[in-house]
Amino acid sequence: MKGIFIIADGLGGRPSDIDGKTCLEAADTPYLDALATRGSSGLVDPIGPGVRPGSDTAHLSLMGYDPYEVYTGRGVFECLGIGMDVKAGDICFRANFGSVETSDDGLRLLDRRAGRINEGQKDLEAALRGLSIPGTEIDFLASTQHRGALRIRGEGLSRFISETDPHVIGELLHPSAPTADVPGAQKTADLVNQITQQSYELLVEHPLNQKRISEGKLPANVLLLRGAADCPDLPSIESIYGVRGAVIAGGALYRGVAEACGMTYIPVEGATGGLDTDIVAKAEAVLNALKTYDYVFCHLKGTDNAGHDQDAEAKKAFIERMDTELFKTLIERVDWDSTHLAFTGDHCTPIDYGDHTVDPVPVLFVGPNIPRDSGTTIGIRVAGQGGLGRFSGRVLPMLLGYCNWAPKFGS
Amino acid sequence: MKGIFIIADGLGGRPSDIDGKTCLEAADTPYLDALATRGSSGLVDPIGPGVRPGSDTAHLSLMGYDPYEVYTGRGVFECLGIGMDVKAGDICFRANFGSVETSDDGLRLLDRRAGRINEGQKDLEAALRGLSIPGTEIDFLASTQHRGALRIRGEGLSRFISETDPHVIGELLHPSAPTADVPGAQKTADLVNQITQQSYELLVEHPLNQKRISEGKLPANVLLLRGAADCPDLPSIESIYGVRGAVIAGGALYRGVAEACGMTYIPVEGATGGLDTDIVAKAEAVLNALKTYDYVFCHLKGTDNAGHDQDAEAKKAFIERMDTELFKTLIERVDWDSTHLAFTGDHCTPIDYGDHTVDPVPVLFVGPNIPRDSGTTIGIRVAGQGGLGRFSGRVLPMLLGYCNWAPKFGS
Repeated sequence: MKGIFIIADGLGGRPSDIDGKTCLEAADTPYLDALATRGSSGLVDPIGPGVRPGSDTAHLSLMGYDPYEVYTGRGVFECLGIGMDVKAGDICFRANFGSVETSDDGLRLLDRRAGRINEGQKDLEAALRGLSIPGTEIDFLASTQHRGALRIRGEGLSRFISETDPHVIGELLHPSAPTADVPGAQKTADLVNQITQQSYELLVEHPLNQKRISEGKLPANVLLLRGAADCPDLPSIESIYGVRGAVIAGGALYRGVAEACGMTYIPVEGATGGLDTDIVAKAEAVLNALKTYDYVFCHLKGTDNAGHDQDAEAKKAFIERMDTELFKTLIERVDWDSTHLAFTGDHCTPIDYGDHTVDPVPVLFVGPNIPRDSGTTIGIRVAGQGGLGRFSGRVLPMLLGYCNWAPKFGS
Repeated sequence: MKGIFIIADGLGGRPSDIDGKTCLEAADTPYLDALATRGSSGLVDPIGPGVRPGSDTAHLSLMGYDPYEVYTGRGVFECLGIGMDVKAGDICFRANFGSVETSDDGLRLLDRRAGRINEGQKDLEAALRGLSIPGTEIDFLASTQHRGALRIRGEGLSRFISETDPHVIGELLHPSAPTADVPGAQKTADLVNQITQQSYELLVEHPLNQKRISEGKLPANVLLLRGAADCPDLPSIESIYGVRGAVIAGGALYRGVAEACGMTYIPVEGATGGLDTDIVAKAEAVLNALKTYDYVFCHLKGTDNAGHDQDAEAKKAFIERMDTELFKTLIERVDWDSTHLAFTGDHCTPIDYGDHTVDPVPVLFVGPNIPRDSGTTIGIRVAGQGGLGRFSGRVLPMLLGYCNWAPKFGS
């Protein structure tokens, strides 16, 4: 048996998306409809009814973990997702390149994304290897645009500290401070403040920034650290189910969550984590990974990007591209006698609102052990009356269970 | 956006109610049906599947709190609902006027409700201002009929004590005693026993009781204390969602729960918490409150009273009166482009059983962000196949989420 778990980020929508239909309902998806006709649909509350999910917490919940128990913050998934190793005691951050200017009172924010810097970040990353504080090991890696991740390794650190990003242009960077009276919080806050200052000193005179300024661009002259997190204590999927999984994802966060669950990352050229991602390449990678792994988790981000951009046509078009470039391929080339597929989103990102909402998300299961319901699509209305009813999170455990890999609880 | 949350207490029923239909199914409700046609229905387990709810625990769960975590007892909601302030450390009770006679062994119960006393309770309340124990502050307020609430304020008290009401006519009042080996329980039990004895001494010769006895009525000559509770630690709805709510309810308990959640109480003349309540006045109050508050919670109790009275026709008639006096008004006068409504019950009170049961309850959501399902009523059979599926509690968080007020968990 093989398992395929596909998450289209922010898949869910609302009647306000397009003429009274969600983008998923409005999209022309003959291949997805064919799968729906063979399978059974339902509604999933990614975390629970009436809980508005983040992407990180929703993914943890869909993988079968209780985010209220295991979630420590986003930073750790960003670090894992960028390829760093993370071990107990490390403190991890999302790290943006930002633009600041000096003032008598400290560093003043000019831009939270360094003018959406889009080249030369690896040069800045190299300069930041100069970050140095005795007794600690500091690692920074740049990823896409202004984004990166930073890990502090050292003794007696804590994630209970505030972020430095004031989120408002023109304001001074906030000094990091403890958010709880716990050991290590003051020490870690002090480290963050030193790293912030050092990053400015290492970057302010950097040739790339001199060039950016001469071109009228904002300099990338500081690191803004947020999402402090320590290593969550997750038993791996393999330790629970005895099967090995792979992750195919363009976005670092999703790779990071999957690696934290014990999946193996498979890089795919052209997987951008955006609307322009190469879905054909990802589909091929899924089929290829199934030869080696028991199950594959494939994440597509474009639906969410279009939702945040409030672009209904782009979201609908991305769903239609998934239909012909992924689901058609799977229909034609997967051995459906010995494969189960689950398809859902990690939350809704309705066009009208442009951000995550609490509404439940359609979910589809297909495979030999799934009783076929009467649905022939998986729009929200059909899924709401589908054969799987409504449940909270745990889509991967259900998928692995249909593949007969679940351990028995009790006897 | 505005939110309206309507709970008809004990709304749910069973096929044994009326000729194979629940009272809700049997009732003629053209306006509710019109709302159902516009919205989506489902089933809610007020606390969880197979859990038989009390009204207090069910309301907490529907408001989004975990009653297993926060519920300490009913007394605190009775005290809040009667208008007392309650702070950490206080111990609160439901307090009935009862009828007792002296015997060699103690006070012997004649009636648990003082012959359903219906006048003069405020005179008795005044007499009970004489309750006095050094080092404590004791407050009692009478509400409807034999009912009232009592609060003890003092150092080192505990709710882990037994009640005095033997629940059997002719038995001696039970001395209150600790129910757990925790600090303050013995002290609080002693206080309750002293208050019981003092209440008898303050009331036994009261002119009102002399008059009652001369008229052949049972005297209201003791306070029976039960439902000991301390102040639950509930984060307010406003602190979580950033929006302000109002509560419209005739019954003290429901006002109390809503006030514990941080809602503001709006008194409505004619709201009795009974079958005779002025639903027209409550509907007007809802519309009026929506001008000032982000959301309004409106509670109607008549459905439950009729269920406890095992009077199917009364329950059906109350539902029909809600239809024409509340739902018709809402349909005609609410701006449905910018309002979400949720309607459900806090449990079933089937006619045949005459008390709360475990069965799930129909729930209806209407508003611009709700995908319309195929249902045109919300009877149990239709709701069981409705577009919202089945979920546990948390109706208010879902409603506030559809209004786009929910905070994100994670990022």
